[in-house]
Amino acid sequence: MNAANPAGNALAARLRLVVITDRYLARPRQVIEVVGDALRAGAPAVQLRDKVLPPRDTLPLAHRLRADTAAAGALFFLNDRLDLALAVRADGVHLGVDDLPVAAARRIAPPRFLIGYSAYEPGAARAAIAAGADYIGCGAIHSTSTKRDAGQAIGLEGLNSVVNAIDAPVVAIGGITPERAGKIFQAGAAGCAVVRAVMADPDPRPTVRAFLRAAAANRP
Amino acid sequence: MNAANPAGNALAARLRLVVITDRYLARPRQVIEVVGDALRAGAPAVQLRDKVLPPRDTLPLAHRLRADTAAAGALFFLNDRLDLALAVRADGVHLGVDDLPVAAARRIAPPRFLIGYSAYEPGAARAAIAAGADYIGCGAIHSTSTKRDAGQAIGLEGLNSVVNAIDAPVVAIGGITPERAGKIFQAGAAGCAVVRAVMADPDPRPTVRAFLRAAAANRP
Repeated sequence: MNAANPAGNALAARLRLVVITDRYLARPRQVIEVVGDALRAGAPAVQLRDKVLPPRDTLPLAHRLRADTAAAGALFFLNDRLDLALAVRADGVHLGVDDLPVAAARRIAPPRFLIGYSAYEPGAARAAIAAGADYIGCGAIHSTSTKRDAGQAIGLEGLNSVVNAIDAPVVAIGGITPERAGKIFQAGAAGCAVVRAVMADPDPRPTVRAFLRAAAANRP
Repeated sequence: MNAANPAGNALAARLRLVVITDRYLARPRQVIEVVGDALRAGAPAVQLRDKVLPPRDTLPLAHRLRADTAAAGALFFLNDRLDLALAVRADGVHLGVDDLPVAAARRIAPPRFLIGYSAYEPGAARAAIAAGADYIGCGAIHSTSTKRDAGQAIGLEGLNSVVNAIDAPVVAIGGITPERAGKIFQAGAAGCAVVRAVMADPDPRPTVRAFLRAAAANRP
């Protein structure tokens, strides 16, 4: 990211913390409650991720999260499913290697629709940006128990190599806590994406604020 | 279906046989080979159904089937995934109860994009048509080993009750063979959707022709 990409810089600021949902970690609360707390504490972006719930059951939750994020001025992403993202007028979709390819999603998506793509090394990140992705989700930075298929942790050096490879925001993911966030931003990440740190927290608000403080203190 | 719905009648003719893919039943052949045979024998519609393959791997097959069906003048549908259907410019998508709801799909879909919906009783069929579905897939007519979650067979009477409930084409599914197709059409179905009868057939061409003869002899 650099000054030559003002649209990317504006997006980067809104991606400084991406709260990813997990209804198991949220228990006994509903996802909507935890996200509500995160939004009230200032979380600027939310991603709905549910690999188990069928689309018909995901849709009401997605509509509700769309309304709540819009009211809070936060971005809202769906994981994987472009059709669901379009159905609820989400701001974007986050795609992985098994999902619809970025170029195909870009052809279908309306103007200004945001597409994120998961890449853990520079080549895949460059290819995704060339195909039309707006940002890269990069990890796992640290080892994570949330996503068992996330592969070996790439560490801050791996993150930095992806940051240096592309002129678009990089959102780091994988085992990130508020304590670790400073070094993530110092390594050049535009933001942190977190699941457990927020969803499993009995009171997510101080945690969200701690992430935002780390961003304010350490982002360029 | 009646003369008051000319668009439905035109669609109905193209749905008189819908060949649904199954890569396990196609073995040792590729799906593309079996579909190719079916198209050469005159199959007017193909639906790509694969509940296991991730979207990234489905897409190349979907592109190929789109090209082959277009060359043959046949309709091409994707099962479940509206985003994949849009990505390959399929003619339509076939949705089930767990998928994106019909109304949501209709809001996203471009003009003239076809939406099918699976319903086994009149109420659900009427609701789907009211929500914007173009046709109903209705079954299982006979018990089927292809789809183990298809529920109890509804028989020709069940089929007829759905046919009489809506003014749109009804495509019957579930254990349909060429021998059984005549009675399906006589019960008012616009077409037959088949998986095993074509995909597991060592030579699908005579089978497809037999279905088309049954349609010609028994459709109104």
